[in-house]
Amino acid sequence: MIDLNAIVSKIGADMAAMEDRGRVADYIPQLGRVDPQQFGMAVVTAAGDTYQTGHASTPFSIQSVSKVFTLAIALGRLGEALWKRVGVEPSGHAFNSILQLETEAGIPRNPFINAGALVVTDSILAGHAPRETLGEILRFVRMSAGDDSIHINRNVAASEEAHGHLNRALANFMMSHGTLQNAPDLTCGTYFHQCAIEMNCLQLANAGRFLMGGNAGQNLISAEKVRRINALMMTCGHYDGSGEFAFRVGLPGKSGVGGGILLIVPGKASVAVWSPGLNRRGNSRLGTMAMERLANATGWTVFV
Amino acid sequence: MIDLNAIVSKIGADMAAMEDRGRVADYIPQLGRVDPQQFGMAVVTAAGDTYQTGHASTPFSIQSVSKVFTLAIALGRLGEALWKRVGVEPSGHAFNSILQLETEAGIPRNPFINAGALVVTDSILAGHAPRETLGEILRFVRMSAGDDSIHINRNVAASEEAHGHLNRALANFMMSHGTLQNAPDLTCGTYFHQCAIEMNCLQLANAGRFLMGGNAGQNLISAEKVRRINALMMTCGHYDGSGEFAFRVGLPGKSGVGGGILLIVPGKASVAVWSPGLNRRGNSRLGTMAMERLANATGWTVFV
Amino acid sequence: MIDLNAIVSKIGADMAAMEDRGRVADYIPQLGRVDPQQFGMAVVTAAGDTYQTGHASTPFSIQSVSKVFTLAIALGRLGEALWKRVGVEPSGHAFNSILQLETEAGIPRNPFINAGALVVTDSILAGHAPRETLGEILRFVRMSAGDDSIHINRNVAASEEAHGHLNRALANFMMSHGTLQNAPDLTCGTYFHQCAIEMNCLQLANAGRFLMGGNAGQNLISAEKVRRINALMMTCGHYDGSGEFAFRVGLPGKSGVGGGILLIVPGKASVAVWSPGLNRRGNSRLGTMAMERLANATGWTVFV
Amino acid sequence: MIDLNAIVSKIGADMAAMEDRGRVADYIPQLGRVDPQQFGMAVVTAAGDTYQTGHASTPFSIQSVSKVFTLAIALGRLGEALWKRVGVEPSGHAFNSILQLETEAGIPRNPFINAGALVVTDSILAGHAPRETLGEILRFVRMSAGDDSIHINRNVAASEEAHGHLNRALANFMMSHGTLQNAPDLTCGTYFHQCAIEMNCLQLANAGRFLMGGNAGQNLISAEKVRRINALMMTCGHYDGSGEFAFRVGLPGKSGVGGGILLIVPGKASVAVWSPGLNRRGNSRLGTMAMERLANATGWTVFV
Repeated sequence: MIDLNAIVSKIGADMAAMEDRGRVADYIPQLGRVDPQQFGMAVVTAAGDTYQTGHASTPFSIQSVSKVFTLAIALGRLGEALWKRVGVEPSGHAFNSILQLETEAGIPRNPFINAGALVVTDSILAGHAPRETLGEILRFVRMSAGDDSIHINRNVAASEEAHGHLNRALANFMMSHGTLQNAPDLTCGTYFHQCAIEMNCLQLANAGRFLMGGNAGQNLISAEKVRRINALMMTCGHYDGSGEFAFRVGLPGKSGVGGGILLIVPGKASVAVWSPGLNRRGNSRLGTMAMERLANATGWTVFV
Repeated sequence: MIDLNAIVSKIGADMAAMEDRGRVADYIPQLGRVDPQQFGMAVVTAAGDTYQTGHASTPFSIQSVSKVFTLAIALGRLGEALWKRVGVEPSGHAFNSILQLETEAGIPRNPFINAGALVVTDSILAGHAPRETLGEILRFVRMSAGDDSIHINRNVAASEEAHGHLNRALANFMMSHGTLQNAPDLTCGTYFHQCAIEMNCLQLANAGRFLMGGNAGQNLISAEKVRRINALMMTCGHYDGSGEFAFRVGLPGKSGVGGGILLIVPGKASVAVWSPGLNRRGNSRLGTMAMERLANATGWTVFV
Repeated sequence: MIDLNAIVSKIGADMAAMEDRGRVADYIPQLGRVDPQQFGMAVVTAAGDTYQTGHASTPFSIQSVSKVFTLAIALGRLGEALWKRVGVEPSGHAFNSILQLETEAGIPRNPFINAGALVVTDSILAGHAPRETLGEILRFVRMSAGDDSIHINRNVAASEEAHGHLNRALANFMMSHGTLQNAPDLTCGTYFHQCAIEMNCLQLANAGRFLMGGNAGQNLISAEKVRRINALMMTCGHYDGSGEFAFRVGLPGKSGVGGGILLIVPGKASVAVWSPGLNRRGNSRLGTMAMERLANATGWTVFV
Repeated sequence: MIDLNAIVSKIGADMAAMEDRGRVADYIPQLGRVDPQQFGMAVVTAAGDTYQTGHASTPFSIQSVSKVFTLAIALGRLGEALWKRVGVEPSGHAFNSILQLETEAGIPRNPFINAGALVVTDSILAGHAPRETLGEILRFVRMSAGDDSIHINRNVAASEEAHGHLNRALANFMMSHGTLQNAPDLTCGTYFHQCAIEMNCLQLANAGRFLMGGNAGQNLISAEKVRRINALMMTCGHYDGSGEFAFRVGLPGKSGVGGGILLIVPGKASVAVWSPGLNRRGNSRLGTMAMERLANATGWTVFV
């Protein structure tokens, strides 16, 4: 019998004592100011029980974790047609690399690197006003989390707008190859705002329930789509550290540069962790360690 | 209740009727001569039941599927020290690419691309004679399959020796970076012979049982190592088509250029399929399709 | 004694008879509409004599040939400081490639690939209004050519603005690395207009006189700068075809995607050629052939 | 009137006083042991006058400077057919890079990077015994230098054999693409020995006379071939520092990792310099500086 209460509390205590917390992302000033001493974790089980530790109620910028939600929306909207514009392979390169776009005809490798996430957002935008599209994304996130208070942090979004040259480079590059269909500024603007959605660990763990599958999910999307999104999180969810995450944790997850990670235990649980300091791959340092400890302590893995 | 007999038979019949069988590997003459009209499949369940269809008793060259067995041996021998010489990340490049070796200091991305597999073989070789090392590899394969008749096809090995310039380039390149420890010709010679091991689908499905985990395995290696090898098969087992295999099939597997694929259903089954024609990623075309149909028909997946 | 009159006429006649004229650039509609049957050539000697053939008086879009003039202006303005922001090495990649920007910290390889030319234009812009900067560029070109009628084709500039996503990608990418100092849209806008300058062969040959060196030049820039610009034209003036141009023609030159080439015979002549069809490297097909014939017939080369 | 005696002496004195001498190549032990305090220079004019300073009579390993001589032999033997197996473009990468071989079908970019030089040597070897081919190379070098005492340092050659894994990787890689025609070990063995030819500055300057062109050369090869070899030295002679050498020195040259540089002043002089310490591009640090000072002091340049 797994004592989740004890396991989660122990992880919280261990992480609080960690000295090397990695490096807080500073590519936009708003993220660089976050206190690296914070750590929070929340587990929601298929049975509906909730466990938490540390700063589990402190909101943070979900950043790239938002890509899971936009992918779910885009898959619901476009279905298989989405895969003509973005691939399903790990990239073998950094999350913001432009190299493979040039050698692979402007088609990004997967929906979780920046270029691929821009394609996903572009596919939802589809001629609508960014405001409308952002409304749709927020509605999906609020519904999945069961929490209408989730919102976009306008200061973070403005900071991304002001320092988003690299994403604009990716968008313009794909526009030159015909991969995007809306003006790069509109797609980038929408993307910057989606990344600025704020949640705390409890909200995020709840928002991930629809990926647990089985009866646990809320039927927001079909079981087949759940399977495919989880597969993509396994192979591509931690950028160029996805292989190591699969190797050490053995469960599908998606990280964000704000220090958050969403982890899915198929059929059993949805887990969110947050600690702002990152490792060299751009994933939360303590968050990754916490997830590995959780997997070891619970025996949760898809691989045995 | 899953009717595996009917499912496997149906897949066999469907595959027999397929017209586009992909392209047989022709980088060595011995492989190029294999008849592409062949297809075989074998399923061994945790309960010990066996199901088969088509040319399930015809021996084929397992080629890169052998990398699973040498990895298991090397992990048992070196443990975590192995990961100083080879990584655990998908490469984002072809199985025989040399690009990342140059930009990443001669350390191959993972043990399933050619460069990484050469490192694994080199780590087992460790100063011994190639003949001894090949003996050890064969013993492991025979024990896992429970079949002492499994052997190396000397003609195929000789053909690889005669046309193995690309692998020699990889080995010499890594030698110049200090990644290898034995003379490149010895490591390559051992590697060419390990790739020339012959099995049929029944033998290969049996040989994969130790990766099922739980009581199903034969305790050849620890549960932790099973978990890690399966994770690597999931993220890297099909070269630059690993993401798509995870996306479509949702189970860890390892393919070989001879047209074989070993698939693991954790806790449930070990599956082998063989059809010599390859798709553009270098994986068996019909084999990949057959595995996807098997996953869909049985509901086997690690992702829901 | 070289009979330039006969040589130039013969080249004109030979080129008029050529069937394979390469492919007209079509990345912007305005360029795609140009008649590929045109060919013109003009030679201006150090003594001031002029020779011409074919469509030597037909204006064309000088495109990347403009990079020679902006480089001369920037060198005069910034001197050696320019080389902190752009290199002097051939790239080994296409003129519009973004690959090396990522692996080389956002510093373009040389001032004649697109990324490098954007840096040069950005360095002249330096906080001024694009209109002012374009005025300065036009003044330099008109003075060097001795012709105040030279102007910018506004339709071509507008067409570049509408289809300039790739250059915007390069500019935004360099902005994210701090290589550019003005807003990417301003730098790109200025660059698009400079590329849309129109000249005919006679005007362009005259405009190149300042690079002949010796007393032949008009002292627009110092001999040392002439030497360096010619060196860059030799090693980088024809993108990834620069080595072959040096190998076949043996003289410094700069090509443009509009089909123009400016060639410098140090101490002896300035030559302009124009034919809109391009070879696979993006340089004028007939223009390159004509320059090789001119070099062979006159014995002009810097290498013997 | 140029006072070459004073100029060369002044350069010798200036270089003797330099403190930062770069780093001696240590990829083979035999080269790593050379005393970095040495500097020598020799100038041979078209009129046959000779000027020297420093250690101009101390023999050194010419290494990649040998590529000029093998290229001359191969061009005499194969003519234009050579260019089907090796290109004429600068690579934009390090001298020993394998990257472009993979993306460009195993055809090296030019005959002066290692891969290209291996192709040149392979084309001379052409089924003969390495000993015969080395005899032919030595005869060419001795004839051009007018000195039958020039020889191969067997210790250096043996050291290269023992540490030549990277060149073996290049050769095997090209063999897998069909670019080479002899067994990689034979081609590499011949190449290692050609690199181990020893000369002093006086010998090397004399050996370069055939590239001066005009009556100055000794008619070893045609004027057209002289032109082409000089063009290649200009665009590719200093690896990924060729652009800067053209930019600063403005004359064709070829460097070697032993610290030697051969410089050609078309129609005027052949110059050799040697100092073992290298700059970050792998070219002699003091040698490059000395050549720039020589060009500035004499006004020798092909670009004005």
